[in-house]
Amino acid sequence: MFEQPIPTLRRDGDTLVILDQTALPFRTETISLRSLNDAAHAIRSMQVRGAPLIGATAAHGVALALVQDGAGDQSLRHALQVLGATRPTAVNLHWALARMARVLHPLTPAARVHAAWAEAEAIRADDAASCDAIGRHGLALIAAIAARRPGPVRVMTHCNAGWLATCGAGTALAPIYAAQAAGIEVEVFVSETRPRNQGLLSAWELRAAGVAHTLIADNAAGLLLMRAEVDLVITGADRVAANGDTANKVGTYLKALAARAAELPFYIAAPHSTLEFSCANGASIPIENRDAEEVRLIRGMNADGGDGDLRLVPTETQVLNPAFDITPANLITGIITERGTAPAAGLAGLYPEAV
Amino acid sequence: MFEQPIPTLRRDGDTLVILDQTALPFRTETISLRSLNDAAHAIRSMQVRGAPLIGATAAHGVALALVQDGAGDQSLRHALQVLGATRPTAVNLHWALARMARVLHPLTPAARVHAAWAEAEAIRADDAASCDAIGRHGLALIAAIAARRPGPVRVMTHCNAGWLATCGAGTALAPIYAAQAAGIEVEVFVSETRPRNQGLLSAWELRAAGVAHTLIADNAAGLLLMRAEVDLVITGADRVAANGDTANKVGTYLKALAARAAELPFYIAAPHSTLEFSCANGASIPIENRDAEEVRLIRGMNADGGDGDLRLVPTETQVLNPAFDITPANLITGIITERGTAPAAGLAGLYPEAV
Repeated sequence: MFEQPIPTLRRDGDTLVILDQTALPFRTETISLRSLNDAAHAIRSMQVRGAPLIGATAAHGVALALVQDGAGDQSLRHALQVLGATRPTAVNLHWALARMARVLHPLTPAARVHAAWAEAEAIRADDAASCDAIGRHGLALIAAIAARRPGPVRVMTHCNAGWLATCGAGTALAPIYAAQAAGIEVEVFVSETRPRNQGLLSAWELRAAGVAHTLIADNAAGLLLMRAEVDLVITGADRVAANGDTANKVGTYLKALAARAAELPFYIAAPHSTLEFSCANGASIPIENRDAEEVRLIRGMNADGGDGDLRLVPTETQVLNPAFDITPANLITGIITERGTAPAAGLAGLYPEAV
Repeated sequence: MFEQPIPTLRRDGDTLVILDQTALPFRTETISLRSLNDAAHAIRSMQVRGAPLIGATAAHGVALALVQDGAGDQSLRHALQVLGATRPTAVNLHWALARMARVLHPLTPAARVHAAWAEAEAIRADDAASCDAIGRHGLALIAAIAARRPGPVRVMTHCNAGWLATCGAGTALAPIYAAQAAGIEVEVFVSETRPRNQGLLSAWELRAAGVAHTLIADNAAGLLLMRAEVDLVITGADRVAANGDTANKVGTYLKALAARAAELPFYIAAPHSTLEFSCANGASIPIENRDAEEVRLIRGMNADGGDGDLRLVPTETQVLNPAFDITPANLITGIITERGTAPAAGLAGLYPEAV
């Protein structure tokens, strides 16, 4: 079982203590969430982020709401509605809230608070176990490459789908940590992931874990793949449709195109909570547009090329800031789930009960 | 004839006055270059940038060297060597220096200074004329789309290949300015172009010119192209090989892949000084790796998601910072030159004398 160096979330009495991911990688700070609004704000502002962690936080947010606002039907419905509206793309949010609703609706208000904490904890533990299983199945892919030739196995990832994005070892990075534990040498190429720089979270994790890694501008992924300086790509997912089309952090699709052009494998790592069999294909997945300020705030560059000031791009320049994109199933070599790795079009074979 | 709002370079007696592009878009400052070292530093540090402008600056740098250090053979050779070593990828640099060498080597030292200024000026004027012609030929492509349906023609570009990158109207943006002058409505999608943010230079140009434009993170280009929210892509080039393979700012290749997947046209705009018929294909083009600090210096992001501090990623995180990538000819719909638009594989038809 992977143990998180710092828990991404943990219950402390009637509060939820989260690691503030907007302070990382520069400051390691925790925040205590005490109310529905605290939880909703944490998700919206990306104090917690990563599809699995968003789901688990929302589940705990329901418990906070019932403690704070009472456990009647109206309070429960309100909590589910507010949390469900925080971010549109990661389906784990809706999955977790539906699971909470299923357990809590039939209960009396008196029984709900205890049940809410218990179910939220079950979701957390479920996610940690899924991450470990994804790590084992992904490890097999890495071990197969390591067995073919000497030298480190070079894995490219995007955004952060490490332990910070989950309640356990991560999704895309779980196989990396499993490989490290198995004594297989790995090297990770991390895209900075503009505009929010979540690649820096991956670099922070990998630095702390002692895994060799190289930070690149998002733009550089194409050249590295074309030159086959990478063996495989693994990213996480925010929502996988029934046909295998996958929404993930914007920029994922470009890496999938470049991997295909270079005939290199491209994998998605995702637990069952990210799979949505009732969604036919990628075109039905809503894509969140985030605040223009995320792109508008940039730094100047001085004559030495290495320093500069923070400035805002004037508003005469419009900004479009989609946070996710869709990678079509035909570009995905396989989806690594807690039940094993399936071709993107063959997910139903792993989850017959869900179809 | 397009007139630059501020000359990117102009001779002033025995000095060369350049617009400092490392201060843009926040401060509009000029710098006077007085020596070979000044010119070499301006190119290396990207005070001047853009393949055509690098070539013209190097040509003027030879004149500065001969004025400052004497016009003998040794001084001339030294100037050509120092300037030729400033940046490896943009072939315009070598083209301009070869043109200077051809004119200056046969002359007596006494005749060289005047001839150097004259040839540098000819290179500048030649580039301005090329930009205008590229604008006219590119305009035909934009006008054809405008004629098919109402609404603005939506052009995606990458980096800055506007007037700032040249001695005239620009390369990729020349057709935009020509369309504006012809009364055709255009909208430009500008990628920020990490790590150096040259997209902000394009936004600055377009803002000043009153052309509608939208800034996006580099990662967002794939989604926009997949959704066909763009009609065509036009970028500049740093070197075009005989077979049409093209080196341009890193990230260009990813846009070409996404344009092809969406069945949208992808054009390169480049003058003859960027074409290298002696280079067989893209694999022979040297790719510059720039300083890690360009990627390492990033901003934190605070809890409000919109602000942060400048920080350095620790050196335990390695950085790879290739400044260019290669777009294979088969992804390029056409190359817009001053002689017209040719398929990437058919450039020789436009330049029979060069092959």
